[in-house]
Amino acid sequence: MPEYKAPLRDISFVTNEVLEAEQLFQTLPGYEEATTDLMNAIAEEGAKFAEGVLAPLYQSGDQEGCKWSEEGVATPTGFKEAYQQYIDNGWPSLSADVEAGGQGMPNLLGIINTEMVGTANWAWGMYPGLSHGAIKTIEEHGSPEQKEQYLTRLVSGEWTGTMCLTESHCGSDLGLLRSKAEPQADGSYAITGQKIFISAGEHDMTDNIIHIVLARLPDAPEGTKGISLFIVPKVNVSEDGTLGERNAVHCASIEHKMGIHGNATAVLNFDGAKAYLIGEENRGLNCMFTFMNTARVGTAAQGLAHMELSFQGALAYAKDRLAMRSLTGPKNPDGPADPIIVHPDVRRMLLTQKAFAEGSRAFLYFLAMQGDIVDKGTEEEAKAADDLMSLLTPIAKAFMTETGYEAANHGVQIFGGHGFIQEWGMEQIVRDCRIAMLYEGTTGIQALDLIGRKVLGSGGKLLTNFTAMIEELIARGSEEDKQFLEPLKAHSDEWLGLSMKIGEAAMSNPDEAGAAAVDYLMYSGYVTLAYFWAHMAMVARQKIAEGDEDKSFYEAKIMTAQFYFQRLLPRTESLKTTMLAGADNLMQMPEELFAV
Amino acid sequence: MPEYKAPLRDISFVTNEVLEAEQLFQTLPGYEEATTDLMNAIAEEGAKFAEGVLAPLYQSGDQEGCKWSEEGVATPTGFKEAYQQYIDNGWPSLSADVEAGGQGMPNLLGIINTEMVGTANWAWGMYPGLSHGAIKTIEEHGSPEQKEQYLTRLVSGEWTGTMCLTESHCGSDLGLLRSKAEPQADGSYAITGQKIFISAGEHDMTDNIIHIVLARLPDAPEGTKGISLFIVPKVNVSEDGTLGERNAVHCASIEHKMGIHGNATAVLNFDGAKAYLIGEENRGLNCMFTFMNTARVGTAAQGLAHMELSFQGALAYAKDRLAMRSLTGPKNPDGPADPIIVHPDVRRMLLTQKAFAEGSRAFLYFLAMQGDIVDKGTEEEAKAADDLMSLLTPIAKAFMTETGYEAANHGVQIFGGHGFIQEWGMEQIVRDCRIAMLYEGTTGIQALDLIGRKVLGSGGKLLTNFTAMIEELIARGSEEDKQFLEPLKAHSDEWLGLSMKIGEAAMSNPDEAGAAAVDYLMYSGYVTLAYFWAHMAMVARQKIAEGDEDKSFYEAKIMTAQFYFQRLLPRTESLKTTMLAGADNLMQMPEELFAV
Repeated sequence: MPEYKAPLRDISFVTNEVLEAEQLFQTLPGYEEATTDLMNAIAEEGAKFAEGVLAPLYQSGDQEGCKWSEEGVATPTGFKEAYQQYIDNGWPSLSADVEAGGQGMPNLLGIINTEMVGTANWAWGMYPGLSHGAIKTIEEHGSPEQKEQYLTRLVSGEWTGTMCLTESHCGSDLGLLRSKAEPQADGSYAITGQKIFISAGEHDMTDNIIHIVLARLPDAPEGTKGISLFIVPKVNVSEDGTLGERNAVHCASIEHKMGIHGNATAVLNFDGAKAYLIGEENRGLNCMFTFMNTARVGTAAQGLAHMELSFQGALAYAKDRLAMRSLTGPKNPDGPADPIIVHPDVRRMLLTQKAFAEGSRAFLYFLAMQGDIVDKGTEEEAKAADDLMSLLTPIAKAFMTETGYEAANHGVQIFGGHGFIQEWGMEQIVRDCRIAMLYEGTTGIQALDLIGRKVLGSGGKLLTNFTAMIEELIARGSEEDKQFLEPLKAHSDEWLGLSMKIGEAAMSNPDEAGAAAVDYLMYSGYVTLAYFWAHMAMVARQKIAEGDEDKSFYEAKIMTAQFYFQRLLPRTESLKTTMLAGADNLMQMPEELFAV
Repeated sequence: MPEYKAPLRDISFVTNEVLEAEQLFQTLPGYEEATTDLMNAIAEEGAKFAEGVLAPLYQSGDQEGCKWSEEGVATPTGFKEAYQQYIDNGWPSLSADVEAGGQGMPNLLGIINTEMVGTANWAWGMYPGLSHGAIKTIEEHGSPEQKEQYLTRLVSGEWTGTMCLTESHCGSDLGLLRSKAEPQADGSYAITGQKIFISAGEHDMTDNIIHIVLARLPDAPEGTKGISLFIVPKVNVSEDGTLGERNAVHCASIEHKMGIHGNATAVLNFDGAKAYLIGEENRGLNCMFTFMNTARVGTAAQGLAHMELSFQGALAYAKDRLAMRSLTGPKNPDGPADPIIVHPDVRRMLLTQKAFAEGSRAFLYFLAMQGDIVDKGTEEEAKAADDLMSLLTPIAKAFMTETGYEAANHGVQIFGGHGFIQEWGMEQIVRDCRIAMLYEGTTGIQALDLIGRKVLGSGGKLLTNFTAMIEELIARGSEEDKQFLEPLKAHSDEWLGLSMKIGEAAMSNPDEAGAAAVDYLMYSGYVTLAYFWAHMAMVARQKIAEGDEDKSFYEAKIMTAQFYFQRLLPRTESLKTTMLAGADNLMQMPEELFAV
């Protein structure tokens, strides 16, 4: 089983040296306390918890899984105790608003913690993780009473939250949902219907669970414009805050899944459950978008988590396992064979994992900091940051989960046959990782959001905002950085050109956008990661020039950047061709010719 | 759960119309009976068994798994009865030699049956499947007595066979193996050691299991030149053929695996087990190669099986599941939404599965027919066929399993969140499929075999033999075929050029071959499949021109070929760049800089 060690050096490199978080936070009112020292200290504490408490439950949680009974769901041994410790340490409230009892730290620190928790044990991390969406939704759209009644205890972690969207016949297409909300005399509503795929939907860790539920009012218009958003507590809460009767929402069963066995994916039956409207009637989907972005960035973190964990497992094995001699002569002449890390193809897989993980870390943290600017910056700063997040969130979600899955599979491959065996722990990462490309909007859904709503929908504006940032970086580069900045420039220009071509084609046939979407998204991902790799390599080069004592760390960074630019970025070449291949080769075949 | 329907129309198209098997078999002494009519009839019977008996045990076999006890291994409910029926129907002996009691049918028919059995239930199919290697090994290298004693009952399926190569510390690098074989006074040997990853290594389907085991004689040279090959029956067989005492080989445990739960992957302890030498002392690895090629082609079939099964499952769902409207306006205006097959990206995934599956079928059957020429052709024909197989086997094994895994993952993706849920059966295909890239030589091992031993090792001769075949096809084409033949020609030429470049680079630095190997193999796979797709499209075009009544089948074939050439073959562009990116970006980083 891979033994997780939080990559604190790299976390600090990205946070402090590349993204210069302290400098930013000094300019954001309320975040001034978030100094480099404080952030490093919090990350170190978080690392101890992730490594010492959560990682040991990773494999056992998978094997034991959750157990459903009429009374509820029992989480795997140790999960409950770990959760209590997590609350006692104050982790849930780290980046929540001070007004709601939070510690008011930046989102960035929340994401660093999410990464470490999730790498150590993704299934466990989903219990506190799902609360964030509920918190965010009530923070932004809840009434003062709702905030008082629910928010503080979600923030403290005393209760957890869920998001109840999907029904068995509709996931991506929420316009089809059927759950009904009947207005009651007391101003509340009674919800009837069934929701499925509710992560952390039922468990034994807390006394109450606050469900955020989408449902339709009796007279609501059809489709997405007739959906309202509700709070449905598992246990009713009296006005004085004490727990009252059990609400009429029950967990009918939990799913048997490919992975994340430690997290209960619940089927929830609402039988006239007491519910409270959030925001305006029929405007539920708009309120949901607040949550969806948070959830998508959180899912991007899953991609990073599994890249890192699989890399760590595979790296230890590649140094330890002996097989064959190096093609250039023995490297371990006293042993019976060489460690497999001498073989070029093993290194290709390890470096792929490493380049994706470290590049994704910079990408993810950058996104979290944009969230901080949205929350605390000036109006103008917030608008710019929000625009960047709009563009980059679908890219991060889809690209990091797709490449996360690739990385997890390389980890299995490096182990050879042993990778397929459960006790080694590598195949679990693949199984846990597979869901990330599906939930919170599939890769295909993210791709349509990117090309349709974000790039073409903004007339290219959101994209040119970002390519202008790329240009700024390029302008700051020196001669030695050219190996990275020249291909970055070429790709940035090409990206704009491709966007225009697809936009033109889509004007005469909307299917052209759909036909190009996923290849376009993956292309965008490779270019975005190239930006972060170029940035990291520039910082590393400067540090070496300054005579920094950690020279080998920076040298590894530059070599990994070279690997990225020479071995991974060229994947854009094929993507460019296929995204321009047109819709005909997809759409010309009549449905009946798809047959066995 | 996907409901398997054997693709008999496509099987017949490839066998009879594209590869013109009957015409070939008329020229091969002993295979004259294998007419189109007979082959179709046998395929139809095989389809009934696969669909009716094996497919219903696919999901239950996964959920129940194998159960180990001191007494042995119990296979999942129904497996044993299905096996008895399989023997009763005479399937195991279909393509075995008449002298050994076989039906003497061509390998091609064996592979068609392997495909259908394996698509219906891969884990089950491995029990009779593993026997083929044992049969092949004894046929080619066994003494007349060994043939009499073991071969007939392996061929009939009364017993099954295994191949015992791997030990816990060595898989790819068999030179490290430690199992010992001590000569005994009676001419037999006593084997002591432990073997792991023995597929079908213990089960309750037959009275006996014939293990083919690699071990070292006491005075054997180190490395691969000191390995000998032995027969070790689970139960000793008396000279009169009756079963005697239990031999000292026992199943210590079975592995807990990611997939293929219905097949027992055994740890076998040999405690002075009675063993019989096959072939010469210390020449065991040479004898093994006979088996390895058979096993690799068999594993390629697994890639095809999972492409096909996942395609069938995803296709049914894509026609049934309603979500969103087509970007070009409602296609199902009376329903609440359109079936998801209207969406370009869903079609992209379906067509990827379809193009890989149908292309791989042609590739696999072609390989099986080369085996038939090796067995029954003139010396010259056999040599040419053997050369082709040498080149194409590592490509088929690695490329078809890698793309098989991709296809299986598309199947999950098309199902959205439901793809992650066990009851739908799509995630099982991914789990079952994952092993195919690992066993019988990982993708990396196949890639080294291809570039090193086959292409460069033959001075390019094996490759130019095949590109000459490609040229022949191109020469037969007409104007309408140019859309396929021109890119095929360009890729065929480029393939030769790339091989030379890598060969030159490898002369000064052998790591250059290792650094290019996997990308080179995948490139080779895309070009090979392009050859088969061009061939199929040409046949389809001719059939339409002849006014064949099955016009829509042929039209679908041509459209799928167009999809392949426009959407999948361009993946060679990136592979070309990365295979030429050199070894430096992989090898420059000192081992200690690979760190967390």
